[in-house]
Amino acid sequence: MTTHFHTIVIGAGSGGLTVAYGLASLGKPVALIEARYVGGDCTNVGCIPSKTLIHLSRRGSGDAKHILATVRRKRDALRERETREFQAVANLHLIYGRARIVGMKQVAVMLPDGEERVLSADHVVVATGARPRMVSLPGLPAERALTNERIFEIDHAPRHLAIIGGGAIGVELAYAFRNLGSRVSIIDIAPRVLIRAIPEASRAVEESLRAKGVAFYANAHARSYDAASQTLRVEREGQVVALEEVDDVLIAVGRERNLDGLGLEAIGVRFTPHGGVAVDAYGRTSVKHIYAVGDVTPSSTFTHSANAQGRRVVQRIAFPWLPLRDPAPLYPDVVFSDPEVASVGMLPHQIARRYHPNLIRRIHVDLATQTDRGYTDDVQYGFIAVDAMRLTGRILGVTIVAPKASEMISFFTLALQEGLSLYRLYRVVHPYPTFSSGFQKVADTFLRETLPVLRDELVAYVRYRWAKPPSEGSS
Amino acid sequence: MTTHFHTIVIGAGSGGLTVAYGLASLGKPVALIEARYVGGDCTNVGCIPSKTLIHLSRRGSGDAKHILATVRRKRDALRERETREFQAVANLHLIYGRARIVGMKQVAVMLPDGEERVLSADHVVVATGARPRMVSLPGLPAERALTNERIFEIDHAPRHLAIIGGGAIGVELAYAFRNLGSRVSIIDIAPRVLIRAIPEASRAVEESLRAKGVAFYANAHARSYDAASQTLRVEREGQVVALEEVDDVLIAVGRERNLDGLGLEAIGVRFTPHGGVAVDAYGRTSVKHIYAVGDVTPSSTFTHSANAQGRRVVQRIAFPWLPLRDPAPLYPDVVFSDPEVASVGMLPHQIARRYHPNLIRRIHVDLATQTDRGYTDDVQYGFIAVDAMRLTGRILGVTIVAPKASEMISFFTLALQEGLSLYRLYRVVHPYPTFSSGFQKVADTFLRETLPVLRDELVAYVRYRWAKPPSEGSS
Repeated sequence: MTTHFHTIVIGAGSGGLTVAYGLASLGKPVALIEARYVGGDCTNVGCIPSKTLIHLSRRGSGDAKHILATVRRKRDALRERETREFQAVANLHLIYGRARIVGMKQVAVMLPDGEERVLSADHVVVATGARPRMVSLPGLPAERALTNERIFEIDHAPRHLAIIGGGAIGVELAYAFRNLGSRVSIIDIAPRVLIRAIPEASRAVEESLRAKGVAFYANAHARSYDAASQTLRVEREGQVVALEEVDDVLIAVGRERNLDGLGLEAIGVRFTPHGGVAVDAYGRTSVKHIYAVGDVTPSSTFTHSANAQGRRVVQRIAFPWLPLRDPAPLYPDVVFSDPEVASVGMLPHQIARRYHPNLIRRIHVDLATQTDRGYTDDVQYGFIAVDAMRLTGRILGVTIVAPKASEMISFFTLALQEGLSLYRLYRVVHPYPTFSSGFQKVADTFLRETLPVLRDELVAYVRYRWAKPPSEGSS
Repeated sequence: MTTHFHTIVIGAGSGGLTVAYGLASLGKPVALIEARYVGGDCTNVGCIPSKTLIHLSRRGSGDAKHILATVRRKRDALRERETREFQAVANLHLIYGRARIVGMKQVAVMLPDGEERVLSADHVVVATGARPRMVSLPGLPAERALTNERIFEIDHAPRHLAIIGGGAIGVELAYAFRNLGSRVSIIDIAPRVLIRAIPEASRAVEESLRAKGVAFYANAHARSYDAASQTLRVEREGQVVALEEVDDVLIAVGRERNLDGLGLEAIGVRFTPHGGVAVDAYGRTSVKHIYAVGDVTPSSTFTHSANAQGRRVVQRIAFPWLPLRDPAPLYPDVVFSDPEVASVGMLPHQIARRYHPNLIRRIHVDLATQTDRGYTDDVQYGFIAVDAMRLTGRILGVTIVAPKASEMISFFTLALQEGLSLYRLYRVVHPYPTFSSGFQKVADTFLRETLPVLRDELVAYVRYRWAKPPSEGSS
């Protein structure tokens, strides 16, 4: 069997599979090294089981045991199908083992039987992903400390699930287990859930969580767990709250990149100050023939961004003569809460760093009161928020909170990518009655506020377009 | 009270309200004449009650009587709120009565008390809408012959609802009443439901209707009804089928424009060969100061298209110096079935009339097998179908069949409006896992089929781009 390949891909998750499949279909011999399961986090402990669980739990019928078993069955079936399919791809050699870069173009693989094999390649792609960050909670027995890697293995809905961390994973699973009948409490050190989203989005999700009976402890720290009484002690603003009958604790406080033992430092691969492999817009690291995609880079935490990065790496490796002109793509950010939260472009704090606040118009359309679909569907929490530049109507950032925000955001991803202003979006006719017809209201509002005072807008634009934003503290 | 206005709008439905409100807010005195209810079909007998019913019936809980009462309550509340709001708009004079154009700029209004009042205006906008077309069915008592104007008044779910006509109204209400527990049969003279949609879309909807237990009789004619035995006789391909226990019949065979008695012919307003008031892209009729919007025109059958037409009429009347450069907007076509059907751009038969078939590529992405969201959500029927031009990737027409196709179509409406090819859409990153990520698959497929054979594609493009399409019969 050959030991020299065109490309070695380390990690068979979303990003690695995209690269391996892409290059193999172009006829390049590829070694794809995977330590555990084909499909990575997404198929095995992420999107696929979590979205299946969210879907099944929402129906409000069927018991929890059955639903959780169905989730595992579907996850396993997909994993097996994907494994089979990738094993059958011509030019793609799937090798189970742990990889370590041992020379400029050499990768050692520790095989399951303990043997080590050394492979070589012209290109090496690091796609080893990330794992849940653990926190130690005094008194919590290991079998009650769950992460997204273990929660889909439990065969019952916990009586009371405490979730440490109110980010995307914590919030999505809070809805799912609440729907399954669990009592659910979220404990977060941050002042609000989904701290990366705009505050209005966090508020909408907090209100909907509360309406469903999920307790949320903000600015709070889980301090200790008493296994005998199943009590979780939480400290909040100097007070201690005892959460009782907590039979499972989900730890969802962030993720750590799988970079240890890969040997990247030794061959000179550079990292960014906040961690992660430094890459250019086409996934190349500081070492010419080494690339990185997915969670190991600082710019991707999603399956869709890992895929997009992988496609670019394929282009770069397979068609090196093609011009590399495109800036990094826009990655939409989505939380599959209920309502969903989707955003694209710059967030307000990023806008504030670049532009003077007097240059920006925030347009907010409330779904419940400003769209008829909100009325027919009894929507409580939802909105479309757009930050645009005065006068020109250039769109800088968008957040949508809506039942299917994940299916709506691509309209704005396209608009941002193509640099289409609100004047152009004004001409688009949306179906009635839909939440998307709120997009029309966004454009209407902008034009209605802008056109009657065009002179003032022009003055403001000229004055603030190139003005320095105030320092972050004061903005 | 004044009898001269800047504009008289006849009909307070979606189109008329848009014009009246738009002009009044710009300070123009407007008379808005309405024979019945503010809100027109949409609020009273269309979108609002039907979408509320679809929403409530889908939950699968609550009894039919209660749901139907809730639909009426919400409809009435919205009607009252809208009536109140429009009555409070400055410069807008809401007058109940029946209007007739009696002179070049004169409109006579027959008031509810029988008095006639003559108003004058610089502009007259006809927005009188349409009504259900009736068919006579021997033996059917009037109280059992329902249309969309009466069906929301019934206070129970019929035991067996026979729906004559498998268009949008018939199909949407078939789902709703089936969900409420009625036995439902659709009888259509056409070979498939939603005859305006592409055949694959009809097939998907027919399969989903069948899976829910709705019977569909294609190529069939309702011949007679026997009130004593509650039997509806249907003739299909020479055979007679007896549908039993039919306690209500919904007639949904199309709509007729409300043009009688308006006096349009007398002042020279022209009509199109297929009926409807002939208008230009800005809603002007053949008579300079008379405009028409909504169902009375041949180009609109939707609330959203009536609104869009209304906005253009406002622009034309209020800002006559603005250039009238834009072609008519693209109107998406949506059926709120389950899954929903949404389309925009040209349909295949329209494409076939303009382009040689060898110039066109149809790309079809199946949601169940080609998107992971289809897998997590157990989607049975759904797809994205795109007709694009070879080589250039110019998009000509799109149909989406998906649970929330109505919220997804705007991506393509924008792409078509801006002339963005599949090469541009290829660069858009969609959230994972969503149905919209199928858009990426559409672009992938096009590029994968096009790039390796660019030379052939170029040859085909040059050869067929300006070639005459074969005559319709042979295509």
